[in-house]
Amino acid sequence: MKNPFDNLDKVLEHRVRLQIMSVLVTNDGYEFSSLKEILGVTDGNLASHIKALEREKYISVSKSFVDRKPNTKYKITERGRNAFKKHLDALEAVVKQQK
Amino acid sequence: MKNPFDNLDKVLEHRVRLQIMSVLVTNDGYEFSSLKEILGVTDGNLASHIKALEREKYISVSKSFVDRKPNTKYKITERGRNAFKKHLDALEAVVKQQK
Repeated sequence: MKNPFDNLDKVLEHRVRLQIMSVLVTNDGYEFSSLKEILGVTDGNLASHIKALEREKYISVSKSFVDRKPNTKYKITERGRNAFKKHLDALEAVVKQQK
Repeated sequence: MKNPFDNLDKVLEHRVRLQIMSVLVTNDGYEFSSLKEILGVTDGNLASHIKALEREKYISVSKSFVDRKPNTKYKITERGRNAFKKHLDALEAVVKQQK
């Protein structure tokens, strides 16, 4: 039987990244400021985790203008949705193994 | 309802540390070399995670001589056992929240 720990995704092994994915998986798109408010983290902290998720193509960024002001929105990608599901299943298997 | 993410333990938010705890919670004491073999990590990597768990008093170290050779064994502490259980419960709640 494969070791469930091996299926954990290194990129998602951080609470803030898990929370970002969990917000984006149930919402069509979220702005930086709304994410920051929900997660209660600093700009720098959120930006670094968003960059890591972007680099892995788990989330995508769309830039637009709203009332002539720049607006940045983050969305989960299909790749991100699958990775998040796989990581949750692995976490579930790790927990089951310990119980 | 409290956000299940808040109950995640920052110290245990790393796969290798979870694996160390999961080995020690079911075994009375483990040597460094055996842990390294089971986890398949480098000396330096394992040592840094063990230090973090020690600093948090989640594991304790006992040093002795076996056949006149120094022997270091790691054991889980009561505090570590409780923290590990709490973290697993929080992981379970996070997974349930997403399903």
